[in-house]
Amino acid sequence: MSKKITASILVIGNEILSGRTQDANIHYLAYELSAKGINVDEVRVIPDVEQEIIEAVNHCRQKFDYVFTTGGIGATHDDITAASIAKAFDVPFELHSKANRILLDHYGDKANAARMRMAMMPRGAELIDNPVSKAPGFKMDNVYVFAGVPLIARAMFEGVKNNLLGGAVTLSRTVSSLDVSEGVIGENLRLVQDQHPDVDIGSYPFLKFGGFGVNLVVRGVNQALIDAVCEDICAMIKQAGGTVIDGETQGEELK
Amino acid sequence: MSKKITASILVIGNEILSGRTQDANIHYLAYELSAKGINVDEVRVIPDVEQEIIEAVNHCRQKFDYVFTTGGIGATHDDITAASIAKAFDVPFELHSKANRILLDHYGDKANAARMRMAMMPRGAELIDNPVSKAPGFKMDNVYVFAGVPLIARAMFEGVKNNLLGGAVTLSRTVSSLDVSEGVIGENLRLVQDQHPDVDIGSYPFLKFGGFGVNLVVRGVNQALIDAVCEDICAMIKQAGGTVIDGETQGEELK
Repeated sequence: MSKKITASILVIGNEILSGRTQDANIHYLAYELSAKGINVDEVRVIPDVEQEIIEAVNHCRQKFDYVFTTGGIGATHDDITAASIAKAFDVPFELHSKANRILLDHYGDKANAARMRMAMMPRGAELIDNPVSKAPGFKMDNVYVFAGVPLIARAMFEGVKNNLLGGAVTLSRTVSSLDVSEGVIGENLRLVQDQHPDVDIGSYPFLKFGGFGVNLVVRGVNQALIDAVCEDICAMIKQAGGTVIDGETQGEELK
Repeated sequence: MSKKITASILVIGNEILSGRTQDANIHYLAYELSAKGINVDEVRVIPDVEQEIIEAVNHCRQKFDYVFTTGGIGATHDDITAASIAKAFDVPFELHSKANRILLDHYGDKANAARMRMAMMPRGAELIDNPVSKAPGFKMDNVYVFAGVPLIARAMFEGVKNNLLGGAVTLSRTVSSLDVSEGVIGENLRLVQDQHPDVDIGSYPFLKFGGFGVNLVVRGVNQALIDAVCEDICAMIKQAGGTVIDGETQGEELK
């Protein structure tokens, strides 16, 4: 089996912590990284505070194979991510000649100090293309620095994702039931899990039609084994008097 | 000025990290806590792994005034939050007599081992009412342990929020513009921020009608000062040839 590849996501922004803005990048990045066989093992949301950024980046870049940050690389005074990452890597924060050229070409006679500040990078940064608004993201070692605006964050990820080295892709299959709840099947489900330590079974209750149903997600790297475990789970649900749905049922509270 | 009150949110769940499920609790809790004058200084999403839960809980409960966790307190084998928190506090994990009574009353002759497992708590836990599905959350010192299902997490928070001690509520006012971008006003905005260190000015670009606009959020504890700073910002936008909108403009990428 190939080595497990890990990642963390660092969302940098007071606006998420204050509840002003609902983050839209965590779910996208987690889903896309999982699909590439990169396991997101931790997500942190931290404020636009230099010391917090430095500590989180240095912790995560040593602990995980990849770090992806979003937020704080724009043209205003509250965008301190790039300068903080220079400090985390203990390198100068300086004008990046290629970024400078991209921004001068884009802005022409509308170039000004605020905009050209986005050409400042940690020394050694490799640029990440921004097809939306031009000001690039960047990569330092295993740290990928994206914008916070979801459309731009996604475009930046799209631009680098083919260069990311993933491990074995985690496969999954979901079976669900509207008419048995976690409590009914919990003990037997535990036995199924104990019999099959090579898969992870997740149990996620939901509300629908005023009652509780359950989504049971079997995850692993061997599809035949996953299917066999799903068959066991289906038999268990039927034995408990429930009806099986092959696939996920969307609960009401998530709509 | 009253002491700043801080909190962290710990979202516990493999399903968020794998991208299967989009978290719906962070934004709700961050917004509600901010409204009570409790500043969320960090959010972490961690897996259903005992050691990770222990380390995160112990880190956060020492660093912040409050910790709120969501996820992992259900009836199945993958619900390990309560047992892990007992280990974090180094207390026995045992049957809680009041929780036991609540669950027996609720389930009657449908009580079984899986369901009654939800009556197991760290010694010393104070129960948090669950009006939706009865199985209670709990509080240990400054750590509040909620379910992950958003409807239940919200009901649990509603039940405890009047007991939370908040500090000065952060006030804010937003002005926005569709026709100036961050880059146009960035330098002057920095001057406004430098002149008014007692407020925090956040600048949040958005896409609309194919162009970039900006939301400028002024936050602080003195409404008169916030309003004065907003006036300065409005004048600055007009000087740059832009039109001011009093309030927030929703960008397209967040829809």
